[in-house]
Amino acid sequence: MAGYQCLTFLTDYGLEDGFVASCHGVAARICPGVRIIDITHLVPPGDVRRGATVLAQTVPYLPPGVHVAVVDPGVGTTRRGVAIDIGGQVFVGPDNGLLSWAVHVAGNGPVRAYELTNTELWLEPVSATFHGRDIFMPVAAHLVNGLDLAAVGRALQLEELVMLPPPVRRIRENSVEGEVLTVDRFGNIQLSVTAADLERLGIRKGGVVLLSLGRRKLSVPYQWTFGSVAPGELVAYADSAGCVALAVNAGDAAQRLGLPPGAHVRIAPAPDSFAPTGVLPR
Amino acid sequence: MAGYQCLTFLTDYGLEDGFVASCHGVAARICPGVRIIDITHLVPPGDVRRGATVLAQTVPYLPPGVHVAVVDPGVGTTRRGVAIDIGGQVFVGPDNGLLSWAVHVAGNGPVRAYELTNTELWLEPVSATFHGRDIFMPVAAHLVNGLDLAAVGRALQLEELVMLPPPVRRIRENSVEGEVLTVDRFGNIQLSVTAADLERLGIRKGGVVLLSLGRRKLSVPYQWTFGSVAPGELVAYADSAGCVALAVNAGDAAQRLGLPPGAHVRIAPAPDSFAPTGVLPR
Amino acid sequence: MAGYQCLTFLTDYGLEDGFVASCHGVAARICPGVRIIDITHLVPPGDVRRGATVLAQTVPYLPPGVHVAVVDPGVGTTRRGVAIDIGGQVFVGPDNGLLSWAVHVAGNGPVRAYELTNTELWLEPVSATFHGRDIFMPVAAHLVNGLDLAAVGRALQLEELVMLPPPVRRIRENSVEGEVLTVDRFGNIQLSVTAADLERLGIRKGGVVLLSLGRRKLSVPYQWTFGSVAPGELVAYADSAGCVALAVNAGDAAQRLGLPPGAHVRIAPAPDSFAPTGVLPR
Repeated sequence: MAGYQCLTFLTDYGLEDGFVASCHGVAARICPGVRIIDITHLVPPGDVRRGATVLAQTVPYLPPGVHVAVVDPGVGTTRRGVAIDIGGQVFVGPDNGLLSWAVHVAGNGPVRAYELTNTELWLEPVSATFHGRDIFMPVAAHLVNGLDLAAVGRALQLEELVMLPPPVRRIRENSVEGEVLTVDRFGNIQLSVTAADLERLGIRKGGVVLLSLGRRKLSVPYQWTFGSVAPGELVAYADSAGCVALAVNAGDAAQRLGLPPGAHVRIAPAPDSFAPTGVLPR
Repeated sequence: MAGYQCLTFLTDYGLEDGFVASCHGVAARICPGVRIIDITHLVPPGDVRRGATVLAQTVPYLPPGVHVAVVDPGVGTTRRGVAIDIGGQVFVGPDNGLLSWAVHVAGNGPVRAYELTNTELWLEPVSATFHGRDIFMPVAAHLVNGLDLAAVGRALQLEELVMLPPPVRRIRENSVEGEVLTVDRFGNIQLSVTAADLERLGIRKGGVVLLSLGRRKLSVPYQWTFGSVAPGELVAYADSAGCVALAVNAGDAAQRLGLPPGAHVRIAPAPDSFAPTGVLPR
Repeated sequence: MAGYQCLTFLTDYGLEDGFVASCHGVAARICPGVRIIDITHLVPPGDVRRGATVLAQTVPYLPPGVHVAVVDPGVGTTRRGVAIDIGGQVFVGPDNGLLSWAVHVAGNGPVRAYELTNTELWLEPVSATFHGRDIFMPVAAHLVNGLDLAAVGRALQLEELVMLPPPVRRIRENSVEGEVLTVDRFGNIQLSVTAADLERLGIRKGGVVLLSLGRRKLSVPYQWTFGSVAPGELVAYADSAGCVALAVNAGDAAQRLGLPPGAHVRIAPAPDSFAPTGVLPR
């Protein structure tokens, strides 16, 4: 096999220890020429859902390659390690749902999957708590070098793979309900509702939406970007992943609204819609 | 054209999301062999002035190449995207002043500038809020590959480029007044006053300076390095960017003095100068 | 000489300034093809002991190369800069003990050492406070290019090198006493006691240990991994560096126990040992 030029890496290891570097080192020893792209290592410890979200939204922009993701609270217990081929690229990590969204947004979905059981590819001795370094990264590096995927271990049925339950997204006649998927560095709140969902409700940019956050109800302009409203104003917009998001221009919407990941939000057309406000984009 | 070996990258995107990695991925797909150097991605959200400072102080040490910088609170509004050639290297980013200091410290200053209007170079569809990924990075990557700068869009007059107002720096007969440019990780306070400014006032290392911080007045040794004074002592020194800086040896001067970026500081020779104190450097 | 393919880098510079990037830039200008692996740049400011710990535990997994480490509270004073050859790889940094553990865990220990005195290899002008950029990195980059180590300066006797005092580790007949070496991102507490030390006391995985933390005494299961106990439970285990560590499954042991680096911990077999608890690893 031809192998890959690129290896990507997402974890919850943080940046203050040497964990990420140890994994880079293991990869660089096995496949010295590969480009390594770090997706993030600041997934909150053990937050598989957050890791899955970031991975799924980033992978479409990465070069084809081997993607290693490790958010692994069950390391050293009975959870499996897996490698999943989606046709032209491979995901390697724990089979705890972390990979389950990314493998469906990129390529055509899973084509083949294997449990990592071939111990000859692993670093010896294998620690009980650092499979990123001792199992996932060496296996991935051998795949970068062109190792046939079937060599990593035992073939799995695709139905055996652990799937995360999908985010809430309920489309009704006059509204759509979703949950907070993520909050980014800017405090922007990404919802599991798409711009296309709003369009189906007849909501267009330049209009206004009615947000229901539990008992709170808020009328918010639906605009092109945060800069479309005045500083300090709340705005809904279609973000760079195609999701509806809430922001405060030059502010922090998550702090303003107190909405953590998982909180439910219902969106409907505002009852008395009014003309576009704010600055129009070019 | 020959293109470049190096692409550098500064943003306020943070490290917890996949934003930086998406941009790396876009670049790696277009110009697979380039070295990417991350300057920082921890510019405080929307702090154009801080971004401009870090960029200007770092670029002189980077290899010639294409420098992408994105601190872009006006993304998706009418602010322009630009590419500025300073002769042998190019800056790409929003035309909001972020690039305006760096283009003058490196090379000979701006030689040519273009507004990014050639949509054929962009990622489709272009999001309204993530021009780093969809516009700036793909344009930069094509420049790395040797694309002629004139192909990115419409030629601009250099005078059209947005300039940040320069930091306060008032040189008087017996004193110099500046502002706090940045506070670094160590709590060291960098002022917009140079070591050469102090020399012109007859202040030499080993001497003492009189600092006026609003109504507070402090006599502080002017030394070679923080280690020249005892732990816990305040010291002024010429920092690695040639600026006068304030530090507490083994401590945090910003916390001690409560001086945020933009605060004014006046420096004068101490009225009763005394002999050097502290450890002399080798 | 053949030179090296890899340059690694550990500092306390943080990620919010341009310090790390300046050093990358200096290296990339001198040795454009080298792979640079960042170990960490989040060593707490001036914490030489923490830097030494992370460096020593990471280096065994890195490719052979030149390792630059800079945690340097004495920069610009009389402390020496050094390059230490351990046979096939070289460490470069301040001679303050930072390198002293790593040079003994990797390879065969120091073979040759030189004080960095050859100013022709340095960046001019040399700042008093940023030797990472102006001295250590350019020297390292020339070594990557194959420069003979003897060219960096004056030969030192190996006994002249500054050594950090080793961590406390007292092995008694019925117990072993150690100190907290590090706390990682997950709040896991790494002790200066090895799994082999516990084995010599007859303590096996699946058993129970008695911890003495000052006056507090705690019975804690000694297991394969944090996932071997229920969420929220405290557990002792052999970590990925071969040290005994304390964790709370899905929690933060350092917060729970309030044990900072340097705190002493005594471990003994539990008086009434009982059968293994928790989930067995595969």
